[in-house]
Amino acid sequence: MVVTDPDVLAGYRQDRALDPDAGTAAALVRPLTTEQVAATVRWAHEHRVPIVPRGAGTGLSGGATAQTGALLLSTEKMREISVDTVTRTAAVQPGLLNAEVKRTVAEHGLWYPPDPSSFEICSIGGNAATNAGGLCCVKYGVTTDYVLGMQVVLADGTAVRLGGPRLKDSAGLSLTKLFVGSEGTLGIITELTLRLLPAQPPQSTVVATFATLTAATDAILAITGQLRPSMLEFMDAVAINAVEDELRMGLDRTAAALLVARSDAPGEHAGHEADLMLAACEKAGATEAFRTDDPDEGEAFCAARRFAIPAVERKGPLLLEDVGVPLPRLGDLVTGIAEIAAQRGVLISVIAHAGDGNTHPLIVHDPADPDESERAHLAFGEIMALAIGLGGTITGEHGVGRLKKPWLADQLGPDVMALTRRIKDALDPHGILNPGAVL
Amino acid sequence: MVVTDPDVLAGYRQDRALDPDAGTAAALVRPLTTEQVAATVRWAHEHRVPIVPRGAGTGLSGGATAQTGALLLSTEKMREISVDTVTRTAAVQPGLLNAEVKRTVAEHGLWYPPDPSSFEICSIGGNAATNAGGLCCVKYGVTTDYVLGMQVVLADGTAVRLGGPRLKDSAGLSLTKLFVGSEGTLGIITELTLRLLPAQPPQSTVVATFATLTAATDAILAITGQLRPSMLEFMDAVAINAVEDELRMGLDRTAAALLVARSDAPGEHAGHEADLMLAACEKAGATEAFRTDDPDEGEAFCAARRFAIPAVERKGPLLLEDVGVPLPRLGDLVTGIAEIAAQRGVLISVIAHAGDGNTHPLIVHDPADPDESERAHLAFGEIMALAIGLGGTITGEHGVGRLKKPWLADQLGPDVMALTRRIKDALDPHGILNPGAVL
Ligand SMILES: Cc1cc2nc3c(=O)[nH]c(=O)nc-3n(C[C@H](O)[C@H](O)[C@H](O)COP(=O)(O)OP(=O)(O)OC[C@H]3O[C@@H](n4cnc5c(N)ncnc54)[C@H](O)[C@@H]3O)c2cc1C
Ligand SMILES: Cc1cc2nc3c(=O)[nH]c(=O)nc-3n(C[C@H](O)[C@H](O)[C@H](O)COP(=O)(O)OP(=O)(O)OC[C@H]3O[C@@H](n4cnc5c(N)ncnc54)[C@H](O)[C@@H]3O)c2cc1C
Repeated sequence: MVVTDPDVLAGYRQDRALDPDAGTAAALVRPLTTEQVAATVRWAHEHRVPIVPRGAGTGLSGGATAQTGALLLSTEKMREISVDTVTRTAAVQPGLLNAEVKRTVAEHGLWYPPDPSSFEICSIGGNAATNAGGLCCVKYGVTTDYVLGMQVVLADGTAVRLGGPRLKDSAGLSLTKLFVGSEGTLGIITELTLRLLPAQPPQSTVVATFATLTAATDAILAITGQLRPSMLEFMDAVAINAVEDELRMGLDRTAAALLVARSDAPGEHAGHEADLMLAACEKAGATEAFRTDDPDEGEAFCAARRFAIPAVERKGPLLLEDVGVPLPRLGDLVTGIAEIAAQRGVLISVIAHAGDGNTHPLIVHDPADPDESERAHLAFGEIMALAIGLGGTITGEHGVGRLKKPWLADQLGPDVMALTRRIKDALDPHGILNPGAVL
Repeated sequence: MVVTDPDVLAGYRQDRALDPDAGTAAALVRPLTTEQVAATVRWAHEHRVPIVPRGAGTGLSGGATAQTGALLLSTEKMREISVDTVTRTAAVQPGLLNAEVKRTVAEHGLWYPPDPSSFEICSIGGNAATNAGGLCCVKYGVTTDYVLGMQVVLADGTAVRLGGPRLKDSAGLSLTKLFVGSEGTLGIITELTLRLLPAQPPQSTVVATFATLTAATDAILAITGQLRPSMLEFMDAVAINAVEDELRMGLDRTAAALLVARSDAPGEHAGHEADLMLAACEKAGATEAFRTDDPDEGEAFCAARRFAIPAVERKGPLLLEDVGVPLPRLGDLVTGIAEIAAQRGVLISVIAHAGDGNTHPLIVHDPADPDESERAHLAFGEIMALAIGLGGTITGEHGVGRLKKPWLADQLGPDVMALTRRIKDALDPHGILNPGAVL
């Protein structure tokens, strides 16, 4: 269970944020059961050894970055799942990948909605720890909306069960919800009870391109003002071209923005809603817009959108943003980011879960070029300041981790920071759980 | 703002749980603004005077019961609301009634789903403080699913803003969700940012009666196993007869149970789903079952179900239960309650948000008859023990308040109680916020 081989440990130093300040962990632990997690934490508690919990390491905010002298606790071997079709719930261990959960429940005709773009490679425990979002969340909500209960190991090694397969439960504080999104700072999630839905109906898909960013953001508001799409995604020119470079699917390289919108309303209503979205795009001045009811073609455009981060990454290492704003401010955010890119002379590609107001500005930079790197990091901070100024958030779904920690107080203010600190201290008085993350 | 007139205070002694142990408050405060709430709490904090927050006093678990020497803080005069149609959110003060929120947003073509049966008389702040459920929650979720942010005054009088009109926000701990359902024990909610949906489509309604409880619970499982009704409500024979006594709408007095089920799927899909539910009821052995697409007729059956508590109350004072179980155990719960009623020789009527597994056994008793009262209270405890034994909860939506406090530890266990206590002590070290409630 315990590994100290430096070659193995090296593979666990960073998550996808590639934090250059990653340390060297003392050891890696890969437990199989809640009891083993509890025993590990009890030991760490007694010896005051910090623990960094880790799912699949796809996090983009450095939440799973190794700390020197700490224990890395990876959930990768905790992979059990059982599905209950009558309560429409699944009990899953945290190490299972999101895609594996989706596939297993689909075998029972059921659907686990949350679908981060990374769904093939991220763990369900990591999803709960970050309150992950995704593409269908504009209609179906985020991870917390699907977590009915959990088993969690607290900082002193006590394992507790919170909630359960009950659709409603008002007994005591909403502790389950507090642990969702706590990024490993309050406890280690060892089991989740997930709420499932009946299989999603077939979707109708609209793809539209625009000559200006403003036309695209106008279309987004026109769509969300009328109906609830099951997906509403955005890519800018840089992302379109980066994806087209890799996938050669005939995207319009001259477009300033591309939207992918879907409806899963029952029967022919999906098509009706798609037609409304098509009309909204055309009215906002789309250069091209079409609807497809072919599932493969629809999925190809979604896959293209999901591929945007890896595609842009091929242009150079990324500083990955995750800012969100109230929907009416999306246009201001997107144009403001373009201004920051111009002022700082860095390439920034914007992709977005547009229907949520949640954008991922991808700042391309060459870490070997100290001047460019500095400008990229300045832009990174300025984008967060811009989002906060627009009434937004520094992170819509990736979490604060270590990368965004310096900006959290700017958003929350001193009183909410103090409140957060009081809860952290009450639950982890010796600060052994993921120290340096969030707070 | 401050009232000490005993006649006025008398009207605020109890909530709808009619706790006989209610005390005499020192004074009543009815602030208008967050700043006034903060000033009140700062004063109470300095002088270590306990505060009992109160919305509309419709609570069924004694959460707003006056405590001797305490300050009663009623939000009834905090009634501002503003609706933003673009973000589809509303900013509301806590004293507005749920029905007033619904009506105001409906004027903008929007919908606030949570619909406790008490929606005409309960406050939106009380809904958030108890994480209220309701009839449409089987499809649309409970209050917490609609609270994006809040302003809350903490135990030392600091006012903080949590969350906001952003559909996704992963910055820091999920504090908004922690305060929802905290029953006034962690802070006083002075403003809510609510997520709204487009207006609900017209509903198709199915009404079915059954000769046995088991046939009815079979029908419930058959329905939820196939689709997601927008309402699935249950009344037993006592409730049917009590409602019929008052409303004379021709309900079948000989039936053991009645279900009201609805679908709001778009267009003709509502009718299709209703037909599936109708078939499920018939297959489970319904004695009578019909579908209506007439909105007034459908609403009349919903109103009848909502009227069940007041109607049964006319038979005598009630001890009101709120136990919930995972859906497959609903049959065991309902038949188990009938056994407890027989053994204890008390009249217990069961109504239920059946699709959620959440039941309201109504224990009729005469407080002037000490023997009957004692048997009623024994039954009250036995029903909670039964629910816990079936993997359920002592409260699905009404909260723990003061009435259910003795049973909370039975459900949560000592470790979760200790965790709860740590959070309470961290946020309210002097225990001035709603002392005696929940913990
Ligand atoms: C190409 C790409 C696309 C992405 N798209 C999205 C997207 O659309 N939406 C989105 O939300 N995210 C997205 N992400 C980010 C990432 O996949 C998510 O944050 C995911 O939830 C992380 O899961 P993980 O298993 O990799 O967690 P890790 O990276 O291992 O850990 C993430 C955080 O959770 C903690 N943690 C992990 N497991 C546990 C546990 N069992 N108990 C307690 N704490 C734990 C860690 O300490 C860390 O703080 C994307 C990432 C990539 C690389
Ligand atoms: C006939 C009837 C039917 C009902 N049906 C349902 C139902 O279907 N679903 C359901 O969930 N409930 C139902 N209830 C119970 C009750 O209406 C709900 O619990 C409701 O949410 C209470 O709101 P209120 O404004 O009356 O709160 P109150 O009774 O005044 O207070 C409830 C609790 O919240 C706290 N509180 C109130 N306002 C605040 C605030 N601003 N900040 C902090 N704490 C606060 C109080 O201290 C107390 O602990 C029903 C009640 C009746 C009488």
